[in-house]
Amino acid sequence: MPRINADRLLTDLRKFAQFGAYKTGVHRPTYTVEDMESRRWLVSQYEKTGLAAHIDGVGNVIGHSRGDRPSLMIGSHAESQNHAGWLDGAMGVIFGLEVARSFAEAPDCTGLPIAPVAWADEESHYIALLGSRSYVGDLSDAEIDAATNAYTGQPLRDALKEAGLAGTSRSFFEPGRHVGYLEAHIEQGDFLESTSRRIGIVTSIVAIWQYRIVFEGIQNHAGTTRMAIRKDAGVAAARLQCAIAERFPDIAGPRSVWTTGRVTVSPGAASIIPGGAEILFQFRDEDEATLERFDAALRDLVEKTSARTGCAASIERIAKGHPRRMDEAFQDALERAAERHCADSHTRMPSGASHDAQLVARKMRAGMLFVPSIGGISHHWTENTEDADLVLGCQVLADAAEDILRNGL
Amino acid sequence: MPRINADRLLTDLRKFAQFGAYKTGVHRPTYTVEDMESRRWLVSQYEKTGLAAHIDGVGNVIGHSRGDRPSLMIGSHAESQNHAGWLDGAMGVIFGLEVARSFAEAPDCTGLPIAPVAWADEESHYIALLGSRSYVGDLSDAEIDAATNAYTGQPLRDALKEAGLAGTSRSFFEPGRHVGYLEAHIEQGDFLESTSRRIGIVTSIVAIWQYRIVFEGIQNHAGTTRMAIRKDAGVAAARLQCAIAERFPDIAGPRSVWTTGRVTVSPGAASIIPGGAEILFQFRDEDEATLERFDAALRDLVEKTSARTGCAASIERIAKGHPRRMDEAFQDALERAAERHCADSHTRMPSGASHDAQLVARKMRAGMLFVPSIGGISHHWTENTEDADLVLGCQVLADAAEDILRNGL
Repeated sequence: MPRINADRLLTDLRKFAQFGAYKTGVHRPTYTVEDMESRRWLVSQYEKTGLAAHIDGVGNVIGHSRGDRPSLMIGSHAESQNHAGWLDGAMGVIFGLEVARSFAEAPDCTGLPIAPVAWADEESHYIALLGSRSYVGDLSDAEIDAATNAYTGQPLRDALKEAGLAGTSRSFFEPGRHVGYLEAHIEQGDFLESTSRRIGIVTSIVAIWQYRIVFEGIQNHAGTTRMAIRKDAGVAAARLQCAIAERFPDIAGPRSVWTTGRVTVSPGAASIIPGGAEILFQFRDEDEATLERFDAALRDLVEKTSARTGCAASIERIAKGHPRRMDEAFQDALERAAERHCADSHTRMPSGASHDAQLVARKMRAGMLFVPSIGGISHHWTENTEDADLVLGCQVLADAAEDILRNGL
Repeated sequence: MPRINADRLLTDLRKFAQFGAYKTGVHRPTYTVEDMESRRWLVSQYEKTGLAAHIDGVGNVIGHSRGDRPSLMIGSHAESQNHAGWLDGAMGVIFGLEVARSFAEAPDCTGLPIAPVAWADEESHYIALLGSRSYVGDLSDAEIDAATNAYTGQPLRDALKEAGLAGTSRSFFEPGRHVGYLEAHIEQGDFLESTSRRIGIVTSIVAIWQYRIVFEGIQNHAGTTRMAIRKDAGVAAARLQCAIAERFPDIAGPRSVWTTGRVTVSPGAASIIPGGAEILFQFRDEDEATLERFDAALRDLVEKTSARTGCAASIERIAKGHPRRMDEAFQDALERAAERHCADSHTRMPSGASHDAQLVARKMRAGMLFVPSIGGISHHWTENTEDADLVLGCQVLADAAEDILRNGL
């Protein structure tokens, strides 16, 4: 039985948060000095655990067990959002390290190989899920050539060079090398907390369908243009949002979400009737049928809004993902482990956020575990999780890993 | 009887449009080389008509009849919006010149003094209605010191210096000097055109009440935050606009208008629930009671929207004007003249746009006349009016001027 060391786990989580410490959180953007220091520290820790380890050409820290037996890969991403939390990504990385150590220390687990991993740039400073996309062979050199930092504009190639990674080859998925992948992550929502659960077993990572909707009205003088003849694109954008708010709840699944993240009204002057409006809208669900219902309803509402306001409308779907199911046997293994350590305080749930697991799952069986986020807060330096939940989460992950490796699920 | 010269009027209108010609319109921002050339040309034309004329310290071109009899001031503003129409402002200026000339030429009108005027910067390149505000004593030196160009950022003082106006004193209203003020302007809307009218007699210039409304929700992750706990400031902004669209028609006057000219949602990213939203909203009417009803309804709707969405709301009234009634006797004089030249093709109507007349009316009796805007278009280089309507408008203005001066209305 692997027994994780709670003190060591919490100490290393806090130690890891010193790389780019910011208030009670961290500021550790991908490929910065702090990020690369944290990755080199991981290499040293993986090696101390008896594993081979290296940083690949895009910064992924990859640990390998010695010997030929397929290993279970465990990890998450090491960098943070800007001025954000200490656990988002980092927790799953340190969990991977601690599980590897607990297996190395347990006499009956030495033959069960763990391969810890720390992906690069899941947080999209350059390219969303960059490291895991590269690993599964879904990232071309041309994309790397073209990418720039979303905040600073620095070309990705320059950043890789500064990070000492120019000329280092990328590591790719190798069939047969791993039995699968486990990732632990903070929930980033309040579902676990609000239902008094301590462990979430991820059923699937939801798909995101995203749309650009444009209304074209007639820009005109706000004082001299009678209400009866106006074609106000700003009003059209508002009416569409209200119509969505009325219709979507009736056709939603239990965990569906939808968001208008951006609205731009032009020209945006007090005394000019808006001639144009653009909406960036997205919805997420784990069920394809629900996604299709939302799509149809949205197109219907855009058309009705156009007819009602006299504004021409166009709708373009700019992203259409597929829900990524987590492996059923891995879910069962996580559930058995959770039941052992916190009976009735665990639940199965979809992940509303993207995670590296959705990429890795294209190539191997994958499972995910959530721990509660206090107040549902993430992407903010106040992000936190109870110590007891961190320890519990890591132990459940370790037990599930043993189950998977021992029983060849 | 003053008889305007149609050919001369149209020729001079087109000549004036050559100062800063742009496509079929003009680009003649206040105090630019072209604007100052046009003002110096006006001085020469006023003088040719036998008047004294000067450009004052803020660029107003002021013509004075010789002798002691109070004169009737007639004009509008000379500069244009950027890349805009050839008639907005300029038409009223050239009408003033033509009326002055027609009076000088009519043997029975020589004792009826006309004082043509061309105001500066009604179009707000620096300060809205700058010239007429200065003339009525409502513009301080401190305001002039602080003002900058809305597009270029150039300080107003620098622009005045470059225009050769530094050190030139400003001219102010002098009690007893004028019997009143007439201004002709394009309608800038489609009310006249859509009702087959050729002359609009302005009853009042509407008041503008303007508001900044801010919603504060909770910025959060668009994937992991359940719909039930969201406080989406963008949705609040949309719901307020829809609520206004439902409620305002029921409490509006026949010519009320209301506009949400600007909506800003922050942070404005696809996967982030908006934590903040700001709306710039205004309404206009000529009736104080209607304005008060709108104000009360708006505050009620903001409160209800806040309660419904869980977003904190604040509302700040950033402008509260008063409707400016045009002089009743001047309206009657304009109506008699219109009835003479285009019986049944004239109407009384409020002005939804601001005009210099609203400032001048603080100090003397004032009247305004509108001619139709083809397609209701203004603030665009395609702005136009039928030649026949230009000629008609100028003749109606001349007849009304005679009526006012001869009969001491």
